[in-house]
Amino acid sequence: MRIEFKIESLSDQLNKELQQKIDSKTKPIGSLGMLEKIAFQLGRIQNSLKPQINHPNVVIFAGDHGIADDGVSFYPKSVSYQMLYNYMEGGAASSVFAKQHGIKFNVVDAGVDHDFEPDLPIINRKLAYGTKNYRFESAMTKEQCLEGIKRGAKVVEDIYNKGCNFLIFGEKGIGNTSSASLILSLLGNIPLEECVGRGTGLDKEGVKNKFDLLNEGLSKYNKSKDPIDVLTHFGGFEIVMIVGAMLKAAELKMTLLIDGFIITSALLAAYKINPKVKEYCLFAHKSNEQAHVKMLNILEGDPILDIGMRLGEATGAMICFPLIKSAVQFMNQMASFQDAGVSEAKEEIVI
Amino acid sequence: MRIEFKIESLSDQLNKELQQKIDSKTKPIGSLGMLEKIAFQLGRIQNSLKPQINHPNVVIFAGDHGIADDGVSFYPKSVSYQMLYNYMEGGAASSVFAKQHGIKFNVVDAGVDHDFEPDLPIINRKLAYGTKNYRFESAMTKEQCLEGIKRGAKVVEDIYNKGCNFLIFGEKGIGNTSSASLILSLLGNIPLEECVGRGTGLDKEGVKNKFDLLNEGLSKYNKSKDPIDVLTHFGGFEIVMIVGAMLKAAELKMTLLIDGFIITSALLAAYKINPKVKEYCLFAHKSNEQAHVKMLNILEGDPILDIGMRLGEATGAMICFPLIKSAVQFMNQMASFQDAGVSEAKEEIVI
Repeated sequence: MRIEFKIESLSDQLNKELQQKIDSKTKPIGSLGMLEKIAFQLGRIQNSLKPQINHPNVVIFAGDHGIADDGVSFYPKSVSYQMLYNYMEGGAASSVFAKQHGIKFNVVDAGVDHDFEPDLPIINRKLAYGTKNYRFESAMTKEQCLEGIKRGAKVVEDIYNKGCNFLIFGEKGIGNTSSASLILSLLGNIPLEECVGRGTGLDKEGVKNKFDLLNEGLSKYNKSKDPIDVLTHFGGFEIVMIVGAMLKAAELKMTLLIDGFIITSALLAAYKINPKVKEYCLFAHKSNEQAHVKMLNILEGDPILDIGMRLGEATGAMICFPLIKSAVQFMNQMASFQDAGVSEAKEEIVI
Repeated sequence: MRIEFKIESLSDQLNKELQQKIDSKTKPIGSLGMLEKIAFQLGRIQNSLKPQINHPNVVIFAGDHGIADDGVSFYPKSVSYQMLYNYMEGGAASSVFAKQHGIKFNVVDAGVDHDFEPDLPIINRKLAYGTKNYRFESAMTKEQCLEGIKRGAKVVEDIYNKGCNFLIFGEKGIGNTSSASLILSLLGNIPLEECVGRGTGLDKEGVKNKFDLLNEGLSKYNKSKDPIDVLTHFGGFEIVMIVGAMLKAAELKMTLLIDGFIITSALLAAYKINPKVKEYCLFAHKSNEQAHVKMLNILEGDPILDIGMRLGEATGAMICFPLIKSAVQFMNQMASFQDAGVSEAKEEIVI
């Protein structure tokens, strides 16, 4: 089994025209700040002077983590599956924000330690009932990892086939900031200590304990920096599927709005598999999880929001979504100076 | 003629319950970052555990500035009135974003140097055809200033009577960053040099020229720090009306979402008239106009966005609006741990 995604680099062909269109709008040049950069990038991704967001979807991948039994999180493992019921009822932050913005909400069981009733609208792609504890052994087998990437890619393909061109990924899995920290440490070449943070709300002692547990796991690992090896040993099933989902989305030229710490760890792994995936990404926010900024630096990601969020479930990306939409709206709906008969800088035009 | 607004200080009565409600939601404590602070403040302003945004309105006040004839801006004066036609056609950034977010869009002619056709939906509150040039004389008379404050207040009262409890103010007026700089310098006790910026896009030389012109105006002023005196001498008609509008809105316990440099200069003046006005404000963004941050510091305003915008017309506030709405939605729609049967931190609850 091999993984291969054919991702095309973005073309520079429209760059000049895109910039001209942005600059022709009735506003001082550059005055929409980051919205102008977003519009420019969307235009490049879609190779169009009229970028559009069609049928935006959010996909929450959920999985359980063996390491959660060791107390790396503030919450018990059972919260993962309980939160999926909360999504179904519309009571989670993620479901509330998806509804607010008209983003289609999808939940994938990538490997939760629970059997959900089959009539629930949860997409069942379960690889196992949670990963093994990487303090003692590899979280999953290489076959599971590759199968996860494949399944994640297929989830995206199905959504793409329904007309979607804009995706947000989210995650649920008690213990998954631990996986993300290890992925960052190994793929980013950063000492583990600098990669471990408060997660759901640990205090200083809790963070120290989490570090010790992860460091024990790391000490038993063979140190391979191959992204598949790292994902196999330390991944969550949800993270692995997101890696596949991202690579497939980029292959299909969809735009990805990247959420926080865990999602960016998946992107980091995807980037190590195929660096072109990054060209299709917008970075929604800088998470309050301290090491997120290190991931953003590696990926040269310029986060749009910085409002101290660290909830997961794609909430940061969903809060950012209307800003992306604003970038699209100004490109398509604002008048140019010429359209509106408004005088340009120091050049009087009479209506 | 006197100006007096009876603004009530916010009560602390619900503080504890508001925080409890926020913390009971199915998310790690504090993990929604700034959205939690926004929800808390909205609850305080409305004295309610279920804050609501009812019929949000944006009001763009427009006025012309005598100083614009001296070349303080990158654009000719005529752009002010031309942009009002652009609003009417829906082609301006401001109109596009208002439409995107379902915010009712109002335009007030506070003192534009143009006669608009009376059948246009522009609220005519014209004080004069633009202010005088404060390089040589006071921009307006004290009577005009007080009348402007009164007219601004009345505009808000009319909107309030239609069921609105959430307001965004915007401005249009070529040359009005000059007024805002002078207001900041005088009311904030900051050397003028530090208050002058690029406005619509001046280069270094342009900024120097702008400073020289404003400094000339300042040298002829009697140095009174009374906000009415400052507004009378250096104000724009739009700024003066916004001051009255803000004070009235706070009196009516409406929430104000504060935009950028010019709007914050109006708030600074309103604050000097009645400091309680500030309690009703949320600060949408940190403008790219360099001295905006100085205003925010004086007002202890914590801006939600920092995305390099400097367009005016309330665009920064409108881009921020969906985040405020998200704060309201999570307060009213998210389940608590108890509602959802989700285990709280380290305390197993079985569904």
